Amino acid sequence: MNEPINLAQKLALFDEPFSPRIVATMNDYKIELVKIEGEFVWHSHPNTDDFFLVLEGELEIELRDRTVHLRKGHLFVVPRGVEHRPPRPRRSPRPPDRTARDAEHRRRSG
Amino acid sequence: MNEPINLAQKLALFDEPFSPRIVATMNDYKIELVKIEGEFVWHSHPNTDDFFLVLEGELEIELRDRTVHLRKGHLFVVPRGVEHRPPRPRRSPRPPDRTARDAEHRRRSG
Repeated sequence: MNEPINLAQKLALFDEPFSPRIVATMNDYKIELVKIEGEFVWHSHPNTDDFFLVLEGELEIELRDRTVHLRKGHLFVVPRGVEHRPPRPRRSPRPPDRTARDAEHRRRSG
Repeated sequence: MNEPINLAQKLALFDEPFSPRIVATMNDYKIELVKIEGEFVWHSHPNTDDFFLVLEGELEIELRDRTVHLRKGHLFVVPRGVEHRPPRPRRSPRPPDRTARDAEHRRRSG
């Protein structure tokens, strides 16, 4: 029998971007969690709409004729067959690794 | 063409409990927002699973053999054919109307 799914808990279990995790199924649909960071490829789905719901951070989805800006709590459906590209989030939920960058900068300058 | 849907904005547009609003469609599925307050009836869906995602507050879904406790950010899928009843939330998102109750109390005591 199904159990409740705590989305925040599931999100904490992985870090790899663009590696969807199936957290539930509904009829013959998969409900997937995915972390998005950096750029993705242009693609489309010939047989299904593509459903997005932003749980954390922000997401820009590029379409051929416009860019859709999504924030936390926004949902968006890309119709079947429509080319799209979920690119770089406008603001990263994780700050850049200052220590590593500063070390690199010091090494180069030194 | 589809537009982004801000769920918080959509939730602010209505108050009536158990009056679902269709905010998007995905293939032949409706994505509905609903506010739940008080009790509901036992029911089941013979031809489809029933998908719940809690956006605000808490929700208890009663099944015949157990009760499932959901909080904000939890999702739950009731399999097709399984009887369920989403009853009273354990904590109301709106505080009780103190002024009205206190006035009533004073009137009765006075």
